[in-house]
Amino acid sequence: MSQQKPVEYACATPDVQAVFDDIKATRGVPDVNNFWKYIAQHPPTLARTWDSLKDVMAPGALDPLIKELIYVAVSVTNNCGYCVASHTAAARRAGMTDEMFGELLAVVGMANETNRLAVGYRVPIDPAFE
Amino acid sequence: MSQQKPVEYACATPDVQAVFDDIKATRGVPDVNNFWKYIAQHPPTLARTWDSLKDVMAPGALDPLIKELIYVAVSVTNNCGYCVASHTAAARRAGMTDEMFGELLAVVGMANETNRLAVGYRVPIDPAFE
Amino acid sequence: MSQQKPVEYACATPDVQAVFDDIKATRGVPDVNNFWKYIAQHPPTLARTWDSLKDVMAPGALDPLIKELIYVAVSVTNNCGYCVASHTAAARRAGMTDEMFGELLAVVGMANETNRLAVGYRVPIDPAFE
Amino acid sequence: MSQQKPVEYACATPDVQAVFDDIKATRGVPDVNNFWKYIAQHPPTLARTWDSLKDVMAPGALDPLIKELIYVAVSVTNNCGYCVASHTAAARRAGMTDEMFGELLAVVGMANETNRLAVGYRVPIDPAFE
Amino acid sequence: MSQQKPVEYACATPDVQAVFDDIKATRGVPDVNNFWKYIAQHPPTLARTWDSLKDVMAPGALDPLIKELIYVAVSVTNNCGYCVASHTAAARRAGMTDEMFGELLAVVGMANETNRLAVGYRVPIDPAFE
Amino acid sequence: MSQQKPVEYACATPDVQAVFDDIKATRGVPDVNNFWKYIAQHPPTLARTWDSLKDVMAPGALDPLIKELIYVAVSVTNNCGYCVASHTAAARRAGMTDEMFGELLAVVGMANETNRLAVGYRVPIDPAFE
Repeated sequence: MSQQKPVEYACATPDVQAVFDDIKATRGVPDVNNFWKYIAQHPPTLARTWDSLKDVMAPGALDPLIKELIYVAVSVTNNCGYCVASHTAAARRAGMTDEMFGELLAVVGMANETNRLAVGYRVPIDPAFE
Repeated sequence: MSQQKPVEYACATPDVQAVFDDIKATRGVPDVNNFWKYIAQHPPTLARTWDSLKDVMAPGALDPLIKELIYVAVSVTNNCGYCVASHTAAARRAGMTDEMFGELLAVVGMANETNRLAVGYRVPIDPAFE
Repeated sequence: MSQQKPVEYACATPDVQAVFDDIKATRGVPDVNNFWKYIAQHPPTLARTWDSLKDVMAPGALDPLIKELIYVAVSVTNNCGYCVASHTAAARRAGMTDEMFGELLAVVGMANETNRLAVGYRVPIDPAFE
Repeated sequence: MSQQKPVEYACATPDVQAVFDDIKATRGVPDVNNFWKYIAQHPPTLARTWDSLKDVMAPGALDPLIKELIYVAVSVTNNCGYCVASHTAAARRAGMTDEMFGELLAVVGMANETNRLAVGYRVPIDPAFE
Repeated sequence: MSQQKPVEYACATPDVQAVFDDIKATRGVPDVNNFWKYIAQHPPTLARTWDSLKDVMAPGALDPLIKELIYVAVSVTNNCGYCVASHTAAARRAGMTDEMFGELLAVVGMANETNRLAVGYRVPIDPAFE
Repeated sequence: MSQQKPVEYACATPDVQAVFDDIKATRGVPDVNNFWKYIAQHPPTLARTWDSLKDVMAPGALDPLIKELIYVAVSVTNNCGYCVASHTAAARRAGMTDEMFGELLAVVGMANETNRLAVGYRVPIDPAFE
């Protein structure tokens, strides 16, 4: 009763279908993945999130592969299982090799460790970093 | 009484001085920053952390700038003030421009938002991502 | 061997049964949900947690629906799968509509995004907020 | 050198000034707070964040006070000092009383506690919540 | 205007004074620390939190020093500056040496690192741990 | 395609086998658990993580049981399902009783609650803790 349900294309309203169409066209995929089908339960969230994501993840000063690596780093730190799975796949499609993935997780692991050491030792910020 | 205190080079034991010397030589800096002075209160942690960090952050399949961007992404997500300050500075030294920084934080912000949407809508992992 | 096991009513000690009875009477439900059966493995935690929760979630300056919305917001931010499922169900029983749920997650998502932007840009607190 | 700096209105580009003007007009305030001045260093982030926030925080199925309470709950859970300060102030302007604030933090505290108990006891989701 | 203010003993209501008196007597201290003065703004939270904390931190199967070490570990992981400062001090009063503190933070750092590796590599739980 | 796969002993390179052998000998177990098999996909991470963990978890000023309790506390706070399962099992092997486990989670729960109260009430650090 309280569970969320995906919105499939055939049953979607025209405004949801339009977002799905734009996702498919932009990414060159035959169907949108579950994330979009679930947030489509609230059409304003679907439209706003897609608009923002399309803008933020577009090539710019950072290329798409680097952006996907950053996305995986955040998702791992937040322990979001869905996001780790989907963005690891996206990073691979953007060119991430096994070696890059290994180094990415090594950095993420070290950063999580040293973040806690800095907090535990109550390290004051160096004047040079202000 | 219970506060942590930095270990300055002149008062350090030879093994701590040796690590400080290696950090300074590796990075080409005249002094180590506060993080190292504070964790030097526990010499095994200093030696182990530096050995690991030197290894993990060395150029590899990912170059040092990308690794610093990932470090900032994790530090921002964990809300570690010291780490955000020190690794933002390190990323700039490695070549991060204002535009790259703006895009980095934009991706970090979006990833934190969509991580929560995926959790809140309880999105199941697509078979294609398994 | 190391796994946790639920405490079922029939096998529970009288003090655990008394807490289960109070939960069922307070909520008007035929059985307690898994959370209570699992923490009943440590009876002092069961009793203390129920006493606290009954007190905190009672109608007051904030009504029960608002309290459940807040509970879902925290559980999503902490990425607690069990808590998201159980408190989303509780919020719906308290009157949460699909539209409210969509807006709740939209706010949770935005707050998680802007929290990170504030940390990443190292925004100092305005004097007016002190 | 590596520190972020606020963008003041007089020194801002016209597109940034336009966003600042809209924030001031929408909120009826004489100046924007630091959050907006700092993220204005990356104009696309400023514009996108304000557009999203204005949309998400507008009155809907949930009224603005409830949305601000949810914002505070997330910000406290994420330990974002700036966000706790600014959104507590915003919640008070929207009508939050001392008693409401006390109950809000009580619920946030309990949710954080029980989230961890559910994880630690590895509680499986009840079929009724699926 | 929106800032929290501490409740000092002389200005407190009798029920708040009674809790303060019990904290001082239980701990053998001349005054309560800021945490209690601030949460005293909501007397039910003060009373409930003290009752729970007194119960949870009392000697049991785990002695008070171990409980304080655990408290520091959680506070460091959550990046709570106040809690790290106050519980590090409490742990020292309970007998924590510099060496213990160094090892505590080393374990906390490693746990935070390996937690992320387990998530990033999507490690399935071994049947032996179920 | 994008999923991680475990490295089994028979298919591992000699350097990975050497680490696996050392883990098995150190712990007196017939096989390594999934965590090691998955991170073995990146041999430098496997070697570095095992070296660090063996060092950090060895008996010292804190005994192995206390170190495992701390590991569980961090893993629960970070909501790492794999880590909670594996380190709860390790803690039991090191001597953790049901009563100790109950008290451990009670402390972890309270710490998570009071961490948020300290942040929400914006409690300043007492001079005595500086």
